[in-house]
Amino acid sequence: MGAGRGSVLGAGERTFLEGRRVAHLATADGAGIPNVGPVCFALAGDTVYMTIDRKPKSGRPLKRLRNIAENPNVMLTADRYDDEDWSRLRWVMLRGRAEILERGPEHDEAQRILRARYRQYRAMDLAPLPVIAIRIERVTSWSGAGGADAGAQR
Amino acid sequence: MGAGRGSVLGAGERTFLEGRRVAHLATADGAGIPNVGPVCFALAGDTVYMTIDRKPKSGRPLKRLRNIAENPNVMLTADRYDDEDWSRLRWVMLRGRAEILERGPEHDEAQRILRARYRQYRAMDLAPLPVIAIRIERVTSWSGAGGADAGAQR
Repeated sequence: MGAGRGSVLGAGERTFLEGRRVAHLATADGAGIPNVGPVCFALAGDTVYMTIDRKPKSGRPLKRLRNIAENPNVMLTADRYDDEDWSRLRWVMLRGRAEILERGPEHDEAQRILRARYRQYRAMDLAPLPVIAIRIERVTSWSGAGGADAGAQR
Repeated sequence: MGAGRGSVLGAGERTFLEGRRVAHLATADGAGIPNVGPVCFALAGDTVYMTIDRKPKSGRPLKRLRNIAENPNVMLTADRYDDEDWSRLRWVMLRGRAEILERGPEHDEAQRILRARYRQYRAMDLAPLPVIAIRIERVTSWSGAGGADAGAQR
């Protein structure tokens, strides 16, 4: 009960998100060209964190970072697909604004919770790499078993 | 060998895409606000097809259709996540322009191949519902085992 109180996320949405190991982040550049890729993430309060885990070989920042610098509006979708049983399909979509954190206490804490959640990150030198923080503004969700969740009414 | 010849898709990328049951479609509205959701899809040549499978209760077209009407630039990403072994991570990203097909031979053929690929569609009355066709213009791909695929050089 406490988990969802005063949050844009309902308790069921939060539990579903916390149970997903990968989500999909959509960004768009200044011209409105969209981009989407899989991301590992961690949720803390009403913020979703992701970390960059390697420097691109090109030397240019990743496309998603360049897009966020041009246009901070993003969507993160976490979903479950079940090829055998479409009544198990479910998704939670988070709309919000993204910030790039290059350093500082929030950057470090985000990487700490990401390392706690993904053992692969523990072997990487993440500290010099930026974190993406999404401040969740709006949530919609849907389930194949029951259509829109209560959360979709928010 | 023949599969990739003269295509924007390499043969390995095509095989990977054909093996995925769900992908993620990113669109953006006229103001550049991105949207992403899971989609069932079928590939034919250098076009990816998706069908709408129900009328929204609101009576308004789905957000992805409204976005495509405003801004036809889209990205479709198919990926594989493996929580145990990140060397198995892989993604193929397709950039292109989307068209909405309301009826006609291409619309009907797209729904035929989608029904062939997903048994759940066979029980649905898809015919009155629109199809999204993405004309693939650019492909990038990446594999956790070997970094960028040959396809990423295209």
